Amino acid sequence: MLEKTMRINYLYDFYQTLLTEKQQSYMSLYYLDDYSLGEIAEEYKVSRQAVYDNIKRTEAMLEEYEAKLLLFQKFQERNEWISKVKKMVDEGSLSHETLKTVISELEKLD
Amino acid sequence: MLEKTMRINYLYDFYQTLLTEKQQSYMSLYYLDDYSLGEIAEEYKVSRQAVYDNIKRTEAMLEEYEAKLLLFQKFQERNEWISKVKKMVDEGSLSHETLKTVISELEKLD
Repeated sequence: MLEKTMRINYLYDFYQTLLTEKQQSYMSLYYLDDYSLGEIAEEYKVSRQAVYDNIKRTEAMLEEYEAKLLLFQKFQERNEWISKVKKMVDEGSLSHETLKTVISELEKLD
Repeated sequence: MLEKTMRINYLYDFYQTLLTEKQQSYMSLYYLDDYSLGEIAEEYKVSRQAVYDNIKRTEAMLEEYEAKLLLFQKFQERNEWISKVKKMVDEGSLSHETLKTVISELEKLD
């Protein structure tokens, strides 16, 4: 998956509840079910351009929400810390000091 | 602090970036700086009722955002897990199995 598409998928996952029903439908068909703009237009009896404009506006809204709430960014940072801990647990190399550091980093992210 | 006030404080903390500047000013004066409705009204040269209505609408908006995004709820759940781990680390009673369970619970919250 292209990096931009992956990012939009994540942002959609985090912020979809803030979108209108129509925005959710278009985004979900386009990004999750891999419909083309033309197929969505046909399904909803609107022009291809209308679908395109709606999706572009929605993508911009998702980026605005992310700029304000940083849910995806914090998710990634939390994920990195958790991956490190998992790896160290598996290797048996996790010290209490490291665990305390990770806990304090996770708390800062909230 | 009353439970409702504490809740609004948390919700404000999570969602303030989604509010307008005026909403942020009123909420911040009322909840963080402990101004009265009358004092805010005087400061902004509006009626006490206008301030009251604005704050009540903002509180409802915060609850709507929380219903959609659950940031405060997830924060509380994450916090509970992290507190448990901290306690077990301090007591030296944290097993790798428990830690793995906690990690998987934390991942589910994202």
